[in-house]
Amino acid sequence: MLRCPICGREYEDHGKMRCDCGEPLEFEPFRGRTHTGKSVWERFREFLPVEPDLNLSLGEGDTPLVKSRLGKELGVRLYLKNETTNPTWSFKDRGTFLGILAAIRFGYRNVGTVSTGNMAASVAAYAARAGLKAHILVPSSIAPEKVRQIAVYAPWIIKVEGPYGELYYKSLEAGEKEGIYFINSDNPFRIEGYKTISFEIAEEMSPDYVIVPTSSGGLIRGIIKGFLELRNSGLVEELPTFIAVQAEGCSPIHRAFIEGKNRVERFKNPHTVAHAIENPYPPSGNAVLKLLRETGGFTAAVNDREILKAREELACEGLFVQPASATGIAAVKRLVEEGKIEKGSKVVSVLTGSGLKTLPATGPGKVRGCRLEELEDCLKTTGG
Amino acid sequence: MLRCPICGREYEDHGKMRCDCGEPLEFEPFRGRTHTGKSVWERFREFLPVEPDLNLSLGEGDTPLVKSRLGKELGVRLYLKNETTNPTWSFKDRGTFLGILAAIRFGYRNVGTVSTGNMAASVAAYAARAGLKAHILVPSSIAPEKVRQIAVYAPWIIKVEGPYGELYYKSLEAGEKEGIYFINSDNPFRIEGYKTISFEIAEEMSPDYVIVPTSSGGLIRGIIKGFLELRNSGLVEELPTFIAVQAEGCSPIHRAFIEGKNRVERFKNPHTVAHAIENPYPPSGNAVLKLLRETGGFTAAVNDREILKAREELACEGLFVQPASATGIAAVKRLVEEGKIEKGSKVVSVLTGSGLKTLPATGPGKVRGCRLEELEDCLKTTGG
Repeated sequence: MLRCPICGREYEDHGKMRCDCGEPLEFEPFRGRTHTGKSVWERFREFLPVEPDLNLSLGEGDTPLVKSRLGKELGVRLYLKNETTNPTWSFKDRGTFLGILAAIRFGYRNVGTVSTGNMAASVAAYAARAGLKAHILVPSSIAPEKVRQIAVYAPWIIKVEGPYGELYYKSLEAGEKEGIYFINSDNPFRIEGYKTISFEIAEEMSPDYVIVPTSSGGLIRGIIKGFLELRNSGLVEELPTFIAVQAEGCSPIHRAFIEGKNRVERFKNPHTVAHAIENPYPPSGNAVLKLLRETGGFTAAVNDREILKAREELACEGLFVQPASATGIAAVKRLVEEGKIEKGSKVVSVLTGSGLKTLPATGPGKVRGCRLEELEDCLKTTGG
Repeated sequence: MLRCPICGREYEDHGKMRCDCGEPLEFEPFRGRTHTGKSVWERFREFLPVEPDLNLSLGEGDTPLVKSRLGKELGVRLYLKNETTNPTWSFKDRGTFLGILAAIRFGYRNVGTVSTGNMAASVAAYAARAGLKAHILVPSSIAPEKVRQIAVYAPWIIKVEGPYGELYYKSLEAGEKEGIYFINSDNPFRIEGYKTISFEIAEEMSPDYVIVPTSSGGLIRGIIKGFLELRNSGLVEELPTFIAVQAEGCSPIHRAFIEGKNRVERFKNPHTVAHAIENPYPPSGNAVLKLLRETGGFTAAVNDREILKAREELACEGLFVQPASATGIAAVKRLVEEGKIEKGSKVVSVLTGSGLKTLPATGPGKVRGCRLEELEDCLKTTGG
C-alpha cells in the first residue's frame, strides 16, 4: 500500500508515484526481523517492497562507515558513511536497484530518469545490467564531460530545452503515455532503497545525529523511514536527530524550515559549487519538512567557502568526495560551534558521491621537479 | 621472514624489499584458520604479516563478485571481482593499507611511491588518513588531469625527468637514505594485501580460472599467494588456473612466457590504451613467470581493439572500468574461442580500477534534443 505522507490518501497501485494532491507517495512502514546474509538486501529482506533479485544487483550497499579524525578536533565522535564506494560511485545505486526491480515487476522494458549527474549514471548502468532501455532526460545546457559519464552506459540521452524544474513532472506524464517507468529522485522504490543506509548504520552503532546532504529530499526521507522502521520493529530503541543540510546558495528546505512554513517555495537564482544538491524546488521538500518536525530534526545551510574547505579536509584524511558530500562536514563544524550538536555525541554524516565525478579546478597541489640524478636532493627538500 | 622467490635467500629484516639478487622479496606462506568478522582483515587476520589496525582503514576490500551476462554468450560462468568500489576506486587500496601499517611499524613518518595513476592516488590517500607525509614520484611528462587526481590528497608530487623505468629502483635507494618508506608496486606488504582478493573469492565460490590484468606483476603474485595459502591451510582443495593478461602493445611477461624464458626483457616502444598496465620492464616479471609455471598457469595478450570493445561490453552491463580492467574480459573471449578456457568452467576476472579515472575520449553516445513541450514525441522515437 502506498500512502501520501502529507494528506494521508492511500493507493493500491504500486506503480503510482505521486498523490493526486501533488505530493510523493511512499510505502507504509514495514516491520520485520533481520536475517543473516552477506548483503544488506538479504539481511533486511523483510523490510523491502520487492524481492531483491541479486542477479540484477551490481553489489550496491554495504559501504564502509569510517571514523573521522575531524571529530576529535570538534569534540564529537564523527563517522562517515562512504557511499562513494557504490558501483556507480554514489548512494543513488541503492535506490536505482529497487527501482529497476519495480520496473520489471510492472512489465516495463523502458526506464528513465531526470538528472545530470549521479542518478543519470546510476539509472543508465542498472538499466544496462537488467537489459532495459534507458532514457535519461538532461537540460540542453549540460556540460560535455557530464554527458560522457552517462553515455558510457549507452542509454538514450535526451537534451531538453526549457525550464528544467518542470521536467520532473513532465517526465512522469510522458512516461505514463509512452510506457517508460521513470525512476526519479523520490520514486517510492528509490526511497525504500535508501533505507538500507540506516539499516547498515544501526548494525554498527547508535548515532545521536545523522546528517544528510539534501536536494530533492529523497535521500533523507529514506534514511528517516529506515530508522522509524527499525524502531517500530524493536531493533533500535531511540531515533537519532536528523539534520538536512543544504548549500546556502540553494536552500529552499532550510529556508522554509527556519521560517516555520509547511511548504517549500521555489528558490530563486540558485548558485552553489555543490551542483549535485542544487534543486531549487525539491519535489520531496514538503514531506521532508513534516518528517523533520515529527522526529525532532532540523536543517542547516553552509556556504561555498565552508563546503570547499570541508572537501579539502576530507581529502586530507583520504576521502575524496564531490562538493555536495562535503556539506555534511561543513555543517557539523558549524553546528558544534553553535551548540546545536552536543559535544561528545555520536554523529554520522553521509558522503554521497565520488570526487572523481567533479575533479576540482584548483591548482595542481604541491609539486616539485627534478632530474633522476637529483632525486635524493629533491627528497631532502620535501622529506622528513 | 622474507624470502626471495627466485634464489631462495632469506632475510629477517621485514623492511627489506628486494633480494640482493635483484628480485622482489616476499613473506613466507602463512597458514591459518578463518574467523568471523565484518571485514576481510578480521576474517583472515591469521594470514597477515601485520596487525590490521582498522583505525587506519578506509574500508578497502570486501568488494562485490558480480555474475556477468557475457559468460552466457561464451558458454562459461563468468564472475567479475569489482575492485572499482574500493575507497580510491582501485585494487591498490588493499596493498596500500598494509604498506602504510608497515611504514608505521618501522617508525617512518614519510612514505612514497612511483606511479602516475591508481597507486599514486591510493598511497596519497592512505598516507593522509594515517597522518604521514607522502612523496609521489611521477614522470615529468604526466598529463595535468592525472596530477589532479593525485593532488586532491595533498601529497608532495615530484616530477622526475629521465627514464621512468629506472625510477622504481632509484626510489628505493633514495628512500633508504632519506627515510622514506616506498610502497611501490611489489612491496612485500602490498602483495600481502592483494591476497585478500583470493580469500574473498574463495569465500563465495571455487573458480576454475582466475584472470588478472598484469603490469608490474604485484597483483597476480598476491592473488596466487592467496590461493596457495588457502590450499596449504586446507581451506580450498584445488588451485584455479591463473592467467596473466597483458596488452599486446606492452606484453613483456607474455612474450617471455610463450618463448619459454625465465626472465623478462624490457619491452621496446610500449604503446597501448591500457596505460595502467603499461610497464615495459615489470619488477615482478621473473617471479610471475616462475609462479605461473609452478601452478600450471599461463599468459595471454589482447590488442587495443579487443580491449576497447570489452570495455564497452562491460559498461553495457553496468560496469564502467578503465581500459586495463577490460583486458581480462577480452582475454576470456579469446581464450574460450581458442579452447584454452574450457566451456562450462567457472571464470573470475578482476576489474582493477574505475572508468571515471580515464573517461573515454569517444563520442557523446546516443543523443537526441527536443523542447520541453515536444518531450512525448521525442520519447516516441527513442522508446519501446
